[in-house]
Amino acid sequence: MAESTVIDQLLAQLGPAIVQLPAGFGTRRMHDWSGVPGATPAALLRPRTTEEVAAALRICDARRQPVVTQGGLTGLVGGANALGGEVALSLERMNRIVEIDRTAATMTVEAGVPLQTVQEAALDAGFYFPLDLGARGSCTIGGNLATNAGGNRVIRYGTMRDQVLGLEAVLANGDVASGMHKMIKNNSGYDLRHLLIGSEGTLGVMTRAVLRLRPRPTAVATAWCALPDYDAVTTLLACSQAELPAGVSAFEVMWAGYYDAVLANLPALRAPLQDRYPYYVLLESVGSDAGPHAATFEAFLGRMLEEGVVVDAALAQSETDAIAFWTIRDAPGEYPKFIPDHSAFDVSFSISDVGPAAGRCERALRQRWPDALVMIYGHLGDGNLHVVVDLPGTQGRLHDEIDRVVYEVTREFQGSVSAEHGIGVKKKAFLGHTRTAVEIAAMRRIKAALDPHGILNPGKIF
Amino acid sequence: MAESTVIDQLLAQLGPAIVQLPAGFGTRRMHDWSGVPGATPAALLRPRTTEEVAAALRICDARRQPVVTQGGLTGLVGGANALGGEVALSLERMNRIVEIDRTAATMTVEAGVPLQTVQEAALDAGFYFPLDLGARGSCTIGGNLATNAGGNRVIRYGTMRDQVLGLEAVLANGDVASGMHKMIKNNSGYDLRHLLIGSEGTLGVMTRAVLRLRPRPTAVATAWCALPDYDAVTTLLACSQAELPAGVSAFEVMWAGYYDAVLANLPALRAPLQDRYPYYVLLESVGSDAGPHAATFEAFLGRMLEEGVVVDAALAQSETDAIAFWTIRDAPGEYPKFIPDHSAFDVSFSISDVGPAAGRCERALRQRWPDALVMIYGHLGDGNLHVVVDLPGTQGRLHDEIDRVVYEVTREFQGSVSAEHGIGVKKKAFLGHTRTAVEIAAMRRIKAALDPHGILNPGKIF
Repeated sequence: MAESTVIDQLLAQLGPAIVQLPAGFGTRRMHDWSGVPGATPAALLRPRTTEEVAAALRICDARRQPVVTQGGLTGLVGGANALGGEVALSLERMNRIVEIDRTAATMTVEAGVPLQTVQEAALDAGFYFPLDLGARGSCTIGGNLATNAGGNRVIRYGTMRDQVLGLEAVLANGDVASGMHKMIKNNSGYDLRHLLIGSEGTLGVMTRAVLRLRPRPTAVATAWCALPDYDAVTTLLACSQAELPAGVSAFEVMWAGYYDAVLANLPALRAPLQDRYPYYVLLESVGSDAGPHAATFEAFLGRMLEEGVVVDAALAQSETDAIAFWTIRDAPGEYPKFIPDHSAFDVSFSISDVGPAAGRCERALRQRWPDALVMIYGHLGDGNLHVVVDLPGTQGRLHDEIDRVVYEVTREFQGSVSAEHGIGVKKKAFLGHTRTAVEIAAMRRIKAALDPHGILNPGKIF
Repeated sequence: MAESTVIDQLLAQLGPAIVQLPAGFGTRRMHDWSGVPGATPAALLRPRTTEEVAAALRICDARRQPVVTQGGLTGLVGGANALGGEVALSLERMNRIVEIDRTAATMTVEAGVPLQTVQEAALDAGFYFPLDLGARGSCTIGGNLATNAGGNRVIRYGTMRDQVLGLEAVLANGDVASGMHKMIKNNSGYDLRHLLIGSEGTLGVMTRAVLRLRPRPTAVATAWCALPDYDAVTTLLACSQAELPAGVSAFEVMWAGYYDAVLANLPALRAPLQDRYPYYVLLESVGSDAGPHAATFEAFLGRMLEEGVVVDAALAQSETDAIAFWTIRDAPGEYPKFIPDHSAFDVSFSISDVGPAAGRCERALRQRWPDALVMIYGHLGDGNLHVVVDLPGTQGRLHDEIDRVVYEVTREFQGSVSAEHGIGVKKKAFLGHTRTAVEIAAMRRIKAALDPHGILNPGKIF
């Protein structure tokens, strides 16, 4: 009698309701939004409980069966792609909000719950869950944890790791490492939570989390600012962080090249200001007190105009105005309409290096490809820059060369090849631009210690 | 010819200026402030550079020589104690502020620099370094990193790990893991920084760090509030976090037992209010704008009084008033005067459990020792409670029994046996109250992966 396969064993132990064969899920589980090609997983596991996740991993570990954990598959680096031979593990059935604790200001969730569901449940309970990104409707908390997701509000609230008080994860051997605490301070041994968050599915399967909720902001002030040079941009950042009583909730800087290109190509966009300038900043401050909040913000903006830090500005008088400003910043969602084959980068630098690094990047690209469309914008308060490059008429053949030019700039400036999207498979070749050989060797030792058979998301990060 | 000892080898390679023998340092290197007894280290290493730290560790690792890294020796759990057979490693000569980057708002320091030096340098540069604790003049940044230090401002600014952008550490084998970045966002592989911070000298020797600076607050509002019951305390916390525009920078709650005992025993203290109440809160909000900041704070306090959340309050009208309020909260520094032999605990709970857990703790202690002095106070916004117990006339013989009673309450409520001080040797027996066997096993695997010969601070944490 032939030995049973690992899939047979998974089916026997977990049943066909949990273990689906490829005929049942088709091509839906091959790859994320990155465009990096994937393979069809050998099976799709859809457990309903942490115990079922543990049972599945025990079998896979014993049989040396690779596992790729998948959330909403909205990643941009191929981190959740199946590369060939893996079973895919989806927590889509573990999508419950387990508890909202109003006194502790926490929400306990299963990892399969979509981000937007968490945001809405927080608002319904009178709180605010600040993590926000474009994929909010599709991405899951588990994916946000695995990638340490960032987004627009990091400058005030931090990345995903800053939203997590407690975490439960199943390790490669099926052991459940449970630390579902609600404490803000807990110095009892190594912080496994921060090690697991951002590990892209390679160290454990995160199954549940205790999320931290924040007070719901009741006032929003938004302005579109024009600035004469890059020094003015960093001055505005420093002044707004020091002087706005409620702090800065978004500081999105756009270089002229970005602004001009999106306005030229997307006729629905409305220019907030009549003239054109070298730099634009979308400045937002959320607070708790409508009256003084707006007045203080307006007075601050007046001072910045008087001092010449800002040379022109439009203050949002309504939510409609604010949405119009954000639509310009969110134009990347419309890239498929006019630059379907662009290269996009998510890099970061010291705030003091962002200006010079952006300049170097643009020069290096134009030197090589004088006709290149180069658009630069990002979350300056976090040092996070998005660089988008399009070479008209090249049909994508040069993506790898463009990668090398842009990532070389991150190496020169000791920046990061990945501010928020992670490494996955797409940036593996460039990990060494940001992390040293000693650091990568230490990562590999940790990986081997926690996943000795290498079954968790092999081929990713390093 | 006899084989040379490891101390001979260290002396030969590093020289007597760096390698001191016990005759040179006497009893100064045995133990921290915890009262846990220590041993005299076999030698004291005082390297001047990261390279010298690396050279020392390479020798120690090859010779299986244990190493205990010591900062200011102000710890409270014996984490930096020599237990017998170690060489002590002090970074006291690596005490330079390497750079202040005003645009990036960062300060690059060597690990031996005292906390207070960093605080003062930040203020001199027009910034603020928010980490603050009583030992500020003696403790070092390296010790703050090793213990993930907390203190009074965590509610607004986070613990030490939240102040660190970049980190350099020497691993057990002498490899230098350097990640001296200034980026706020960096998702490129595992976050070794967060793993090393709080690892109490067991995973690496942290040699340099890039610290994050904050805007310098220009306005402080402080009030001493009296509250009728514990629900009112959590209501005041939630309202102040939601409604004060600049947020809450300190929320120190004191149970009546604490207040009564310190006022009865320390005649220099001045009661802020005439009457006595069940709970007191020292509420502070730091902000950036003197005028509206004070007015908004006063108006908020007025609303809380009207609504009966606060039943009496004193608003600091001067810095002298504020200092008088803080002196009551800082009375623990005077414990040696009236309870020299007390037991002190640094535990944490979910904010929703702090009230019930404190009640349970007090009842359990009184049931056992009806005459016990029990004082409870802490940083409620972080769920961090300090419990102080004194049994008149027992001369410390019952410390272990008191430990068991208090830590049992942390187990019942899924709290932490160490909110901020760490585990060291003092809390080793209770680590399992907070962390599961699976978590501890994972920690041990990580320890073995990064320090296979177990030379770094053996006998600590687990």
